Amino acid sequence: MNTNSVTIDFKRFKQTLESSSDIGKVKDTGLYRLALSDEDKKMRDLFKKWMEADGLNVRIDDAGNMYGRRKGEQDLPPVLIGSHLDTQPFGGRYDGIVGVLLSLEVIRTLNDNDIKTKRPIEIVNFTNEEGARFKPPMMASGFLVQQFSQDFVYSRIDTDGLRFGDQLERIGYKGSPENRIKDIHSFVEVHIEQGPKLEQTGSDIGVVKGIQGMNWFEITINGHSNHAGSTPMHLRKDALMAAAEMIHKLEQKTADQSLLLTIGKFETSPGSVNVIPEQVKFSLDIRSDNDTVRNTFINEVKTEMKEISRRREAQIDIQDTWTSPTVNFDPALLDIIDYNSKKLGLKSLNLMSGAGHDARYISEIAPTAMIFTPSVNGISHDISEYTTDDDIYNCGNLYLGVVCELANRDKLTE
Amino acid sequence: MNTNSVTIDFKRFKQTLESSSDIGKVKDTGLYRLALSDEDKKMRDLFKKWMEADGLNVRIDDAGNMYGRRKGEQDLPPVLIGSHLDTQPFGGRYDGIVGVLLSLEVIRTLNDNDIKTKRPIEIVNFTNEEGARFKPPMMASGFLVQQFSQDFVYSRIDTDGLRFGDQLERIGYKGSPENRIKDIHSFVEVHIEQGPKLEQTGSDIGVVKGIQGMNWFEITINGHSNHAGSTPMHLRKDALMAAAEMIHKLEQKTADQSLLLTIGKFETSPGSVNVIPEQVKFSLDIRSDNDTVRNTFINEVKTEMKEISRRREAQIDIQDTWTSPTVNFDPALLDIIDYNSKKLGLKSLNLMSGAGHDARYISEIAPTAMIFTPSVNGISHDISEYTTDDDIYNCGNLYLGVVCELANRDKLTE
Repeated sequence: MNTNSVTIDFKRFKQTLESSSDIGKVKDTGLYRLALSDEDKKMRDLFKKWMEADGLNVRIDDAGNMYGRRKGEQDLPPVLIGSHLDTQPFGGRYDGIVGVLLSLEVIRTLNDNDIKTKRPIEIVNFTNEEGARFKPPMMASGFLVQQFSQDFVYSRIDTDGLRFGDQLERIGYKGSPENRIKDIHSFVEVHIEQGPKLEQTGSDIGVVKGIQGMNWFEITINGHSNHAGSTPMHLRKDALMAAAEMIHKLEQKTADQSLLLTIGKFETSPGSVNVIPEQVKFSLDIRSDNDTVRNTFINEVKTEMKEISRRREAQIDIQDTWTSPTVNFDPALLDIIDYNSKKLGLKSLNLMSGAGHDARYISEIAPTAMIFTPSVNGISHDISEYTTDDDIYNCGNLYLGVVCELANRDKLTE
Repeated sequence: MNTNSVTIDFKRFKQTLESSSDIGKVKDTGLYRLALSDEDKKMRDLFKKWMEADGLNVRIDDAGNMYGRRKGEQDLPPVLIGSHLDTQPFGGRYDGIVGVLLSLEVIRTLNDNDIKTKRPIEIVNFTNEEGARFKPPMMASGFLVQQFSQDFVYSRIDTDGLRFGDQLERIGYKGSPENRIKDIHSFVEVHIEQGPKLEQTGSDIGVVKGIQGMNWFEITINGHSNHAGSTPMHLRKDALMAAAEMIHKLEQKTADQSLLLTIGKFETSPGSVNVIPEQVKFSLDIRSDNDTVRNTFINEVKTEMKEISRRREAQIDIQDTWTSPTVNFDPALLDIIDYNSKKLGLKSLNLMSGAGHDARYISEIAPTAMIFTPSVNGISHDISEYTTDDDIYNCGNLYLGVVCELANRDKLTE
């Protein structure tokens, strides 16, 4: 089999992407397609129809993960491809959707050209990757690798108090435990970069070496509320002033380190113009490729925050809410992606993913890697998220080549 | 007439205060009695009944201000006393309520002892001093001095979209423009301190020299939203990091100045743990006794904030939402309060009010002063707000002496 001369049908892919972009559409270019919503159901129904029309054998597991298998010449563990179709509130049209729909386009191209592979190829659409409605994110891939139990997954509730298990049943996607994918030869996930590095380096493609480790914390500072007009500055225990000092000092500490530090949530109470804030709660997201660097930094951060609290006579509580060590993807798989990228004349960049992805969990049970396609201006999770046609086309053809090569291999290292 | 031997009936006062503390009671020791609420109506009805029972001639004006006049021997402009009966959400039982109910107790004591005065004495309960439901605060005293038009006042809306004018009518307190008080001989308002100075200096009473000037601003910083995991620190335009730097630097600037600076409201969006904040909005409340100091500081603050924004390539918008210059109360009135305080053997402290009060506006049309009674731990606008019985008793007797002296004077300086 030679796929060098075969390319994906980009016009067909674009039509598929446009159909997806209409389901949950907001503000012309955005999507609001939360996991297990009516829009998610509509998208799933359409995706299932597409997979069946392309001759795939469709299965749904008990977390709602959707699989579509294309038979191989031999009954071997499949090459898994795909990503997720859910979005953030006011998210973009690309994100993981590009990964799922390029998977479908790879299958269609193989069918068009009557290309057979030794191994089966299986598409997956993971449920609730975003974690926007039901926390945590990457819930259903985590479930597959036994990071989360079925009880845990089913009992997650959204802000309206609705249970994941009930909502999965409501939309008709509570499948069977037997349908969970077990033996996986290899998994390659395509996703948009969600950052500016590919664009800035003029790269066509990102060969993702792994996922940087991250820690999430929830910080609560309790000071003392009082009237803004009658409490001298030196007698105040202002929770917000304490937080501002902490945050500014933490930012300065990141200056010469390969670290990312983000405070995305910040709430103050009572929240009245003329009342000194009694309490501040904020989130802290710390990431680095290097677990040692990250852990050392976290210790420094905790010490600094406690010291500032102590000096200001405020109370501080630091909750560890999430820990995810750095994950390194399979080197043999990365070599195959690199090789195929060069064969297509694409300029690739090896990089770590800053964001978490389903590939993170699947890497615990199978050789895994990811391919990134560039994000214009590095924007994601926003209606202005955009990836150019050229970039998607190149990514699709690379995906096709990589998948064919994997599906015809016995071992990853030959 | 000699009031030296006459004292207020503290047991009666306490019963009156306890009746008030039951109307809108929250969390045992708090009050939730927003302007024009059902609780405010209930309190007003009871207060009207009390005033009528004590022989006062009750009037309601078109802003809902309640007056109760005790006749003088001559038809002269009255001595005005009182404050406000509305509270903050989860506010305390004392605040301005102590001022209104001590006014009533002064009248009752005069009645008990059959003490006549040359001038009439008039109690006032100002509508919506707090501004907690309808902004701005001190709305109805501002209305009396033509700071706010009737149209403006009536068209204020609460967070449910309900209009002030409609709600005033609903509770039956839309009175007549003719009932507005016009000629005022002098106004003395009693209020809790809402700060720690009296307690810290061991003072029984505060003789309030004036109200410090204040400015309110609303700051909006627009940065750039992006994924927390894939945007290098040096490429971020993080609105929250910009705000943290500003706030920390502004706090440092207040260190050796007689200034107060408070950021009571702080909101960030989109407000997701792993998304770099695009926008931050916060309030800024700056106060000082000295208008020159305050205005110079405000210019520095604006320059600093703009400089930080510029350096971080964020946009900043600074809206002036409120300006209130420093007000100095009437020196002759202050002398009378001082003198009566000494006569009673009370330890008094001359101080500026950090908070705004209705006396601020009334001072524009009549000689005005205030008396503060101490706040335990300086706490106010909170269910733990507390003033001791001894302090209130002393304050009530001082009020009685001051009111009698004023009501028998022709001129303030004799």
